[in-house]
Amino acid sequence: MVSTILLAVPALGILALIFMFIKSAGVSKQDPGNELMQRIGKNIADGAMAFLKAEYKVLAIFVAVVAVILALTADPATSSMMIAVAFVLGAICSALAGFIGMNVATKANIRTTQAARTSLGKALGVAFDGGAVMGLGVVGLGLFGLGLLFFLFKGQFAPDVTITDATTAAAAQAAMLKVITVITGFSFGASSIALFARVGGGIYTKAADVGADLVGKVEAGIPEDHPLNPATIADNVGDNVGDVAGMGADLFESYVGSIIGTMVIGAAYMTLPAFYNTGLGGLNGVLLPLVVAGIGIIASIIGTFFVRVKEGGDPQKALNLGELIAAAIMLAGTFFAVTTLMPAEWSVENSNGLLQTYTNMGIFYAILFGLVAGLGIGYITEYYTGTGTKPVQGIVDQSLTGAATNIISGLAVGMRSTAYPIIVLCAAIIGSYYFAGLYGIGIAAVGMLANTGIQLAVDAYGPISDNAGGIAEMAGLPKEVRERTDKLDAVGNTTAAIGKGFAIGSAALTALVLFAAFMQTAGLTNIDIANPYVTAGLFLGAMLPFLFSAFSMEAVGRAANDMIQEVRRQFLEIPELKAALEVMKRAGHDTSKYSAADLATFNAADGKADYEKCVEISTKASIREMVMPGLIAVITPVAVGFGGGAEMLGGLLAGVTSAGVMMAIFQSNAGGAWDNAKKMFEEGASVQGTIFHKGSEPHKAAVVGDTVGDPFKDTSGPSLNILLKLMAVVSLVIAPFLV
Amino acid sequence: MVSTILLAVPALGILALIFMFIKSAGVSKQDPGNELMQRIGKNIADGAMAFLKAEYKVLAIFVAVVAVILALTADPATSSMMIAVAFVLGAICSALAGFIGMNVATKANIRTTQAARTSLGKALGVAFDGGAVMGLGVVGLGLFGLGLLFFLFKGQFAPDVTITDATTAAAAQAAMLKVITVITGFSFGASSIALFARVGGGIYTKAADVGADLVGKVEAGIPEDHPLNPATIADNVGDNVGDVAGMGADLFESYVGSIIGTMVIGAAYMTLPAFYNTGLGGLNGVLLPLVVAGIGIIASIIGTFFVRVKEGGDPQKALNLGELIAAAIMLAGTFFAVTTLMPAEWSVENSNGLLQTYTNMGIFYAILFGLVAGLGIGYITEYYTGTGTKPVQGIVDQSLTGAATNIISGLAVGMRSTAYPIIVLCAAIIGSYYFAGLYGIGIAAVGMLANTGIQLAVDAYGPISDNAGGIAEMAGLPKEVRERTDKLDAVGNTTAAIGKGFAIGSAALTALVLFAAFMQTAGLTNIDIANPYVTAGLFLGAMLPFLFSAFSMEAVGRAANDMIQEVRRQFLEIPELKAALEVMKRAGHDTSKYSAADLATFNAADGKADYEKCVEISTKASIREMVMPGLIAVITPVAVGFGGGAEMLGGLLAGVTSAGVMMAIFQSNAGGAWDNAKKMFEEGASVQGTIFHKGSEPHKAAVVGDTVGDPFKDTSGPSLNILLKLMAVVSLVIAPFLV
Repeated sequence: MVSTILLAVPALGILALIFMFIKSAGVSKQDPGNELMQRIGKNIADGAMAFLKAEYKVLAIFVAVVAVILALTADPATSSMMIAVAFVLGAICSALAGFIGMNVATKANIRTTQAARTSLGKALGVAFDGGAVMGLGVVGLGLFGLGLLFFLFKGQFAPDVTITDATTAAAAQAAMLKVITVITGFSFGASSIALFARVGGGIYTKAADVGADLVGKVEAGIPEDHPLNPATIADNVGDNVGDVAGMGADLFESYVGSIIGTMVIGAAYMTLPAFYNTGLGGLNGVLLPLVVAGIGIIASIIGTFFVRVKEGGDPQKALNLGELIAAAIMLAGTFFAVTTLMPAEWSVENSNGLLQTYTNMGIFYAILFGLVAGLGIGYITEYYTGTGTKPVQGIVDQSLTGAATNIISGLAVGMRSTAYPIIVLCAAIIGSYYFAGLYGIGIAAVGMLANTGIQLAVDAYGPISDNAGGIAEMAGLPKEVRERTDKLDAVGNTTAAIGKGFAIGSAALTALVLFAAFMQTAGLTNIDIANPYVTAGLFLGAMLPFLFSAFSMEAVGRAANDMIQEVRRQFLEIPELKAALEVMKRAGHDTSKYSAADLATFNAADGKADYEKCVEISTKASIREMVMPGLIAVITPVAVGFGGGAEMLGGLLAGVTSAGVMMAIFQSNAGGAWDNAKKMFEEGASVQGTIFHKGSEPHKAAVVGDTVGDPFKDTSGPSLNILLKLMAVVSLVIAPFLV
Repeated sequence: MVSTILLAVPALGILALIFMFIKSAGVSKQDPGNELMQRIGKNIADGAMAFLKAEYKVLAIFVAVVAVILALTADPATSSMMIAVAFVLGAICSALAGFIGMNVATKANIRTTQAARTSLGKALGVAFDGGAVMGLGVVGLGLFGLGLLFFLFKGQFAPDVTITDATTAAAAQAAMLKVITVITGFSFGASSIALFARVGGGIYTKAADVGADLVGKVEAGIPEDHPLNPATIADNVGDNVGDVAGMGADLFESYVGSIIGTMVIGAAYMTLPAFYNTGLGGLNGVLLPLVVAGIGIIASIIGTFFVRVKEGGDPQKALNLGELIAAAIMLAGTFFAVTTLMPAEWSVENSNGLLQTYTNMGIFYAILFGLVAGLGIGYITEYYTGTGTKPVQGIVDQSLTGAATNIISGLAVGMRSTAYPIIVLCAAIIGSYYFAGLYGIGIAAVGMLANTGIQLAVDAYGPISDNAGGIAEMAGLPKEVRERTDKLDAVGNTTAAIGKGFAIGSAALTALVLFAAFMQTAGLTNIDIANPYVTAGLFLGAMLPFLFSAFSMEAVGRAANDMIQEVRRQFLEIPELKAALEVMKRAGHDTSKYSAADLATFNAADGKADYEKCVEISTKASIREMVMPGLIAVITPVAVGFGGGAEMLGGLLAGVTSAGVMMAIFQSNAGGAWDNAKKMFEEGASVQGTIFHKGSEPHKAAVVGDTVGDPFKDTSGPSLNILLKLMAVVSLVIAPFLV
């Protein structure tokens, strides 16, 4: 039975990868549209690859250095080399998932546009399939990597033994903990990539966006997405870098982290007779998270087949149906797995020394809580950020009195929006703990993340549709095409909001699971908040999300500045661009009024803008700017752990997790709400009975809010997810040294 | 010896009150200026008293209700009635301090203006004496009230006994804890007033400010502080309500809370032979905070005599000298007190069961750390918010590209500014714990707050000078008068920034001390962060500062709206105002160009604006709007404590304190930095080599930032100080029920 599971887990990862390849091939063979569309698409794809190439170059050095450090310093009790191997594999798997996702997303965008020329259903199909490639790639590579390492290292460090009593059980447990400790390297590798993708990507996307807008739209007066603007492609690349690769790496990290953390906690069960007498060698709790993740893969694959819509139908319903079916299959499968794998009943001593009895149904409830909490937090996020909701209408109303009141009300909405998600999260924590102990919290996180395959597919579908709309605009396609992509895009905004909430909630739960694993590995049974070292750690930890957010916001400012300089330079130094800009300034934007000479000038300028240089600027700036926040995230836990001890480090993690989750929710939701308040004006928003449109004073106020919200929701907010998890993973990796 | 101290403590409180009366009489007998100045002054004073009257009416009901609840439900082991008595006394002392401070501040403002007609030195003298009345009133009433209650209740519950062995020591300790538990009611009373003064006052001041600006300046086009604007007086009243009464009540709460908390911790020493053999009945640790506070009073009184400046001199240096001398006297006196009162050496068992030896010099070091940390946090605050500093210049630079970049950089400065204060705070916590154990943290807080007398004098001097400048403007006094008050005001801005940082730092340390006292009273030796109930408490607690801030920011918006409606109504319904406004619109603001008929219209309008109604509107709105945040602060700890247990409540306090301190620093400093960035433009700010003035586009962007910062720095930020302390006090009060 154990060896079947050991083989089935990586096999299910491979299954996901097979379906990923099928979907990917399906997307590739779609019609990429006319020559202009293909050229735009190629520019974006080239830019995205240029970013990845530059990023991965730096990453390779980073990974190599850390791997050497790990190999040289890792816990001598285990094989030092192995944690480094796991680390490298984790980094490779996450990077590969990012590459695959970006690759297909930049193919799917033009093909979605082209499909939208025929029908809404076909367009949804292409966009969603593109997203599904990312989703399946993440879970496939995640589970395959984890399963493979577990299979290999278990064979090496913890071969099957017959457990008959407490002594043999304890020996098996020690061996198993060695295995899992080594595998934490995989999680650390994934976190490192996530740092680059989420923080670097977040800086990239906003630097390009702000730079393109400020010089292009404001200074030179050319419209958004215009090919004359050298930063246009960087801006479009940014959407993919941030929303596809960034989100993918974030969830990859949560997915892997929650599974490994739960495996560590599950190893505690190995010495209970109720477990080691079940024929699984006591590994029930260690294997369950892997099995639940495997079931989630099957559920996600099946779910993707139900995402279909007819012309005139509602894409939201199609996506909901797919998710709902996946959730139902996941729950059914999990019920079967839990009742098969886990003993019917067992007792453990709680912290007060009393015997506490748990049942396998309790474990199932915990999974259910996790799943429901993830969806719940997502929908709450939608309430606070969605077009037309009460909070967003409030921001619209406050725009009437100017930018300042728009900003104040957006900040207030963001802050207020922390309440319900936290209550849901706390209910899930307490509920799953009540029914299944500490293990319950871990398996709840796994339950939340098991369906990442389809969840991420729905997420990544958003930016693909968004890009498709932009391409339709740039390529001058008929109005009904844009209408179809707009319909997809509107749904994409909702799914993006839900996805962001889900990412934060899962990051919080994953950080808690890793925290519990850290305590277990560091041999701590208790971290007393009233111990002043712990209190100081708590304060320092709570401060870090503020410092980290400040760094990343300021980074966007500096990086955008680099971009501005470069665009200005090109406008000055490239004669064809200069000439075309002058024609535009003189004659305005109505191409039909241009003379033959003007058109010739435009034709001469076509393709002369050096997009690559802008992509390079944004890439370099983003990588340079993420060094400081990255170092903070990695060095602080090491410094506090070795300088102040494991307990102070525990305090640090508690502080960074609690304050970090709040700051992430606050910033993401404030940004999302400002964005949609602005969109409401663009569609004509009603304030006190009057309708205000694009260009009105309240709209201008809303634009200020949206600009403030951009780094909030796309850079500093999401980066905090990584901060919490990365610090927890680093702590877990150094935990054996702190015993 | 014990009885000498018992009598000396309230006597020192009375000494402070005597000096307060002398200073107050000194201010009153100053020349109040010409008739116009007196009329303006009277309007402000009447408005301030109207606010206090309305506030105290509601407060009286609140205090009565809570007192009855306390009397009925208080710990039956002690005399139930007594905690209610202490509560009422605490509320009365704090309210009285607020009344005295507001009363003298609204007298000192016009007298400072009048003194500025003669000399800078005289003006500084009046303004500072006004502040000193507030400062001495707070420490005098605080220490008198505490000392009196301690004297009375000690007589009742813990009369002097001869302690010879561990058994008699334990009995004496139990009796003493009963005394201190009852006295916590005093702290709770002080906190309740602080809630009303700081939260209600914060809403009041910004509602009046925003309301006056939006209708007066923007809609009607009349200048700031113009008597035609019905909200002008409310706006001026608001400065006193927020910066004088609010700050006073905040520090009163910290002062009292830190002393009581340290007394609770100090009671733990009563069973050590090293203590009960010193002739103080083991009360050394209980008495020391009272004695240190008493020394601080003497130091503060002496310090005030050194605040003098000659014409052309630097008021900042004068204030610094006063504070420096007070600090030196405090340290010398404390050194004597510590070495006299505390045993030379003693040992206690630490949490690992090892004997830890402490010395009286260690206690002295802890006091020193507290004092230095308080000043340090203040000066760091000045760095992040002061005119011309690097962070504020950064905001000025970012204003060039508009409001959005101004806002982003202000938010980043605020977030970044959390780092150093927290590092200083953590160093103080760890340092004082290292040298003097948990008691060290308590006595460090007392050391930080002992000189509140002069600290608050320096603080309250700021708004008095600010008001004096406004009165000089309104009364049309010669230019050199305004120049002198501007000089005082500029220094006042610096002291205000330092004062805000000090208030946050002391609130944090006070909350920690109260937290330790809570644990001791609730019989908790340990609060394990990894206990999921505690974790959930931590998350809920960290969420509250965000929710609380959102409530108070939204409250300002709603309250300002009420004010806007009222001002609009008056402009429409009062014919004389309407006529004068029309003249102003037609003829502009240059009074010299008005015709005789115009002047007659103005004369007819003079005094017709219903200032009282506006004061009432702002008062009512502020009291209505503080109900919700107030309830959150009081009910949450009760609900969590009884619903989830003492440990979960501990997690809640840890969360609210850690996240609350960050949010307070972030919001206060962002607001302060935006404010001074705007001021830099008003004086002509250099951005990339160009000088920009008032009215320029970058200045307009900076005005948006300043408006966003207003509720940040004057409402939601400072209110968080109260949230942390109030929740800790409520927890301490209910702690005996949670054992």
